[in-house]
Amino acid sequence: MVIKVKKKDTVVLIDIAFRKFLVDTGGKTDKIKGVGVIDPSILVGKKYGEQIEIGNKQFWVLRPSLQDKLQGLKRRAQIILPRDAAHIIMNCSVESGQKVLEAGIGSGSLTIALVTAIMPSGKIVSYDIREDFIEHAMKNLKTAKLDNYVTAKIKDITKGIEEKQLDAVVLDIPDPWNAVTHVWKALKPGGYLCSYSPLISQVEKTVKEIEKHSFIEVKTIENIQREMVVSDRGTRPSFNMLGHTGYLTFARKVL
Amino acid sequence: MVIKVKKKDTVVLIDIAFRKFLVDTGGKTDKIKGVGVIDPSILVGKKYGEQIEIGNKQFWVLRPSLQDKLQGLKRRAQIILPRDAAHIIMNCSVESGQKVLEAGIGSGSLTIALVTAIMPSGKIVSYDIREDFIEHAMKNLKTAKLDNYVTAKIKDITKGIEEKQLDAVVLDIPDPWNAVTHVWKALKPGGYLCSYSPLISQVEKTVKEIEKHSFIEVKTIENIQREMVVSDRGTRPSFNMLGHTGYLTFARKVL
Amino acid sequence: MVIKVKKKDTVVLIDIAFRKFLVDTGGKTDKIKGVGVIDPSILVGKKYGEQIEIGNKQFWVLRPSLQDKLQGLKRRAQIILPRDAAHIIMNCSVESGQKVLEAGIGSGSLTIALVTAIMPSGKIVSYDIREDFIEHAMKNLKTAKLDNYVTAKIKDITKGIEEKQLDAVVLDIPDPWNAVTHVWKALKPGGYLCSYSPLISQVEKTVKEIEKHSFIEVKTIENIQREMVVSDRGTRPSFNMLGHTGYLTFARKVL
Amino acid sequence: MVIKVKKKDTVVLIDIAFRKFLVDTGGKTDKIKGVGVIDPSILVGKKYGEQIEIGNKQFWVLRPSLQDKLQGLKRRAQIILPRDAAHIIMNCSVESGQKVLEAGIGSGSLTIALVTAIMPSGKIVSYDIREDFIEHAMKNLKTAKLDNYVTAKIKDITKGIEEKQLDAVVLDIPDPWNAVTHVWKALKPGGYLCSYSPLISQVEKTVKEIEKHSFIEVKTIENIQREMVVSDRGTRPSFNMLGHTGYLTFARKVL
Repeated sequence: MVIKVKKKDTVVLIDIAFRKFLVDTGGKTDKIKGVGVIDPSILVGKKYGEQIEIGNKQFWVLRPSLQDKLQGLKRRAQIILPRDAAHIIMNCSVESGQKVLEAGIGSGSLTIALVTAIMPSGKIVSYDIREDFIEHAMKNLKTAKLDNYVTAKIKDITKGIEEKQLDAVVLDIPDPWNAVTHVWKALKPGGYLCSYSPLISQVEKTVKEIEKHSFIEVKTIENIQREMVVSDRGTRPSFNMLGHTGYLTFARKVL
Repeated sequence: MVIKVKKKDTVVLIDIAFRKFLVDTGGKTDKIKGVGVIDPSILVGKKYGEQIEIGNKQFWVLRPSLQDKLQGLKRRAQIILPRDAAHIIMNCSVESGQKVLEAGIGSGSLTIALVTAIMPSGKIVSYDIREDFIEHAMKNLKTAKLDNYVTAKIKDITKGIEEKQLDAVVLDIPDPWNAVTHVWKALKPGGYLCSYSPLISQVEKTVKEIEKHSFIEVKTIENIQREMVVSDRGTRPSFNMLGHTGYLTFARKVL
Repeated sequence: MVIKVKKKDTVVLIDIAFRKFLVDTGGKTDKIKGVGVIDPSILVGKKYGEQIEIGNKQFWVLRPSLQDKLQGLKRRAQIILPRDAAHIIMNCSVESGQKVLEAGIGSGSLTIALVTAIMPSGKIVSYDIREDFIEHAMKNLKTAKLDNYVTAKIKDITKGIEEKQLDAVVLDIPDPWNAVTHVWKALKPGGYLCSYSPLISQVEKTVKEIEKHSFIEVKTIENIQREMVVSDRGTRPSFNMLGHTGYLTFARKVL
Repeated sequence: MVIKVKKKDTVVLIDIAFRKFLVDTGGKTDKIKGVGVIDPSILVGKKYGEQIEIGNKQFWVLRPSLQDKLQGLKRRAQIILPRDAAHIIMNCSVESGQKVLEAGIGSGSLTIALVTAIMPSGKIVSYDIREDFIEHAMKNLKTAKLDNYVTAKIKDITKGIEEKQLDAVVLDIPDPWNAVTHVWKALKPGGYLCSYSPLISQVEKTVKEIEKHSFIEVKTIENIQREMVVSDRGTRPSFNMLGHTGYLTFARKVL
C-alpha cells in the first residue's frame, strides 16, 4: 500500500547523515540546511518512505515521528534529552488524557514528549519566567503541530501553581526545592513530582524538602546511555559518550 | 477535592515497603501478601491517597498508575524492565492510536507499557509460541484492565507476520535476526523495528541482517541506571546496581 | 623447571571456587574453611602450580601474589578494594623506594597494595585512631610477610603529621578536609595527596580545602568496574555489579 | 627543606593547563610547546616545587613522577591509558623484581608503567613486529630514564616466546588468541596472562583459547572512569567521558 504526501501534510526530510527537517507542505517557503530555500509544494505527491533529490542532496520523505519532532527541534535553551524524557514519562506514569505541568518550558523538547504521551485528550501546562523561551518553544510545538495541547504561561512556579488535580508536575528549574510545597498542593493523590537537576546539591535540597511533605516512593536515579558500534571489524562500545545529563528525582503525593 | 473509592474501581494498595497489590473492589475475594484473603468491598468509600489499616498492616489506597500496574505484575517469564520499556517507547516513537506488534509476550510487562502508550485508540498485537505465557500475561493485563487493547496469538514471529502497516515491531526473542525480513514487510514506511537482546552475538547477527534491508537510523544502545542515596549522612550512588539488562537495537523502515 | 614448596614458605591454597587461604608452612597448625585444622608441613615438597587434595577438597598450591594477599585478607573494617588501590597507586605515582603515609589502616588492604608498590626499599606509615584496627591489620600484614615495611601509629591525622618529605599521603577517614593542611606540610614538592570518600559532601569539603593550599592537578574521579560473562551461549556484561565504592580525589603539592 | 635542580637531573615542566614537558638539564637544547627551543641549563638551581617563567609562560618545576612520564609521552601508536595500566599491574600482581613480557610495545606507555612496578631489580621484555614502534617507544623510555630496564625485540609473539619463567605476559595485539599457548609455556606457575582488546570478538576468541589450557581465575573486566566537577555552583559528574578503552582479560597459569 503506497501512501503519498498530500497538501498540508507536515513531513520530515531526513538526509543521509540522519539530520532532520520538518516541512509543512502547505507553507510558502522553507529553509533546509545545506540546500537553501525550497518550495514545500514540490513534496506533494511523493511516496512516504522514498528517497528523493532536492538540490543535489538525497532526502528520505517520512511522516514525522516523535523522534523526528524532537531531533528536528530548533534549540535555544539547554534541552532535556529524549532519553531523560523517556524516564520522566515512564516514572511519572504519564498517559493519555492526563493533565501535566512542566516548569520551565526551555526549547519545548520535554513538552513535545509530554504532549505525545497525553494525546489525544490530555493537556500540558508550561510555566516559564522568560517570555522569549515560551515564544521559541511554542514555535517549535507549532511546527510539530502539537501546540493545541499546550497552555504556556509566563509564571514563576516557585511563587505558586494555579492548576489543581494535576497528574504530574515536572520541574526543570534552578531551585526546585522552592516549588515543592506548591507542587504537593497542585497534585491529585497519587500524582507524581519529578525534578530534573544536573547538580548533587540541587538533588539534596529537593529531596530534603520533599521529605517534609506527604510524598511516598521518593527516589533519585541517574541514567547513563552508551551506544554500541557494530561493524565488520567487530563490536565494541562507542568511544563517544555523554558522561552526565541530570539526576531525576521522583516522588508521589499521598494525603 | 476528596475522591473516594467506588464499587468496581480497581485500586492499588501500597505497603510501607512500597510493595503493590492491585485489587478489584468489585471482586469477591483477593489475596494480599502478609495479610491473607480480604473482602475487596471494605475498600469502597476510602479516600484516594489515605493510608488505611488492613489486618495490622498499613496501606496507601491509590488509583493504579502505569508504574503500579508494572510493579504489581505477577512475574513468570523474565520481564523487560520499565526502564527499558521507556526507551523502547521513546525510540520507536510509540504514541496514541498506533498499532504495534510485540513478540514474545513474556509476562505482559512490556505489553502493559505499550498499551498505555497507544491508548485510547491504538492496538497491541502480541505473538508468543507458548500458550501458557499468553494466558499468564493476559491475566496480568486483565487485572490492569488493559486486556481489551491486546490481541494475543500463539505464533512464531520468525515464521511470518500477518499484520500490515504496523507502526512498530518489538522483538524479545532468542533469534531476532530470523524475524527481520518479516518485520520489514509488516512495517509502514517510517515504522520502527526494535530488538531487545542480552547477548552481544544476538546484537551482531540482528544488525547484520537489518543492514541487508532498507532500514535507516540503525543504532544499538545500552542503558545503565543507578540510584542515588540521599540521607542525613550525605549523598552517594547506591551500592546496589543491576549491571546489565539487555541491548536495544533500533532501525526504521524506508522504501 | 619444577619448583617445590620448601619449609617456611608461605603458600596460598586456592579452592575450585577460587577462595584463597594463606598458609605458613613453618607454622604449627592452620585452619582452612571447609576443611578444618591442618598441619602445614604436609605442603612441603608439593609442586608449585599443582592441584592437591586436602580432606576431600581440591586446592591449587601457589606462591602468594599480591592478589592472593589481598583476597586472602581477613576483613574487619570496610576495605578499599584492589580496583581502587590500583588507581590510588597509579595516580599518586607510588613506586619503589618511596615513603607513603596512609590514614586509617582499616584491615590493611590498601597497606598491602602500597607496600608491594614501594618494595624493596620504601616505607609505609599507617595512622589509625583505633588500636584494634592496627592490631588486626598488622596481623594480616604479618601473614603476608609484609609487616616489616610498615610503621603503624595510634594517631589522629587531623591532629598533625610527624613525618616529613613524604611522597604521598592517602586519606581514608570521615573528615579528610581536616587533614589537608597537615598533608601539605608533610609532602615533598610534587608529592601527592589522595582522599578516598564514599560521599559527595566529603568530596566537596575536601576539594574546597585543597583549593586553599598550593596544590595543582586537583581532580576527583569515580571508577566503575563491570565483569563480562563469556560462555558458550554468548557474551554479555555481568548482571552483578557494585554500583559504588568511593570517589578518589587527587592533588599535588607545589610551593 | 629546599631541594634544588642539579645538573643532569631530568625535570618536568608543568604549565598552567597541566601540560607536561620532560627536560634533561644535562642536554644541549630542548623544545617546549608554545615557548620554542630552550637551554635546559637555565633550570639548574631552581627550587623543586616553585613556579618559574620561561618566555612569558609560567611553569612549575618538579621531579618527574610516573604520571608525568606517562602524560609527557610522545604518542604515535594508540596507547594503553594509565587507568588501564593500573588495572593490569594490580590484576597481574606485578611487583618489584619480576620479569614481565609485553607485546606490542606501542608508544611505550604501558612499558613505563610496568618498569615503574618492577623496579629496581626486575626486567621488562617488549616484543613488537614494527621496528619503528620500538624505536619510538625506546626514545620515550630513554627520556624517562627507564630504558635500562627494557629489552625490546622485533618479534611476533604469535610465533613463539623465547623467555621462560615469566611472572606475567601482557598482550595488546590484534589476535591475542594466537599467543595463548606460547604464553602458557612461558609463564611460571601462578603467573598471569593479561589481554587488552577493544572488541568483544577478540575477548571471546581469547577466552575460549584460554579455557583450552591450564589457566584458573579467568575473568574479563571493563573499567569506566568518570571525573567529578566540583565548583562553587555545585558538584556533578563531568559531561566529558570516554565511553570505552578496552576489555581486560586475565588468567593465571597452573600445572
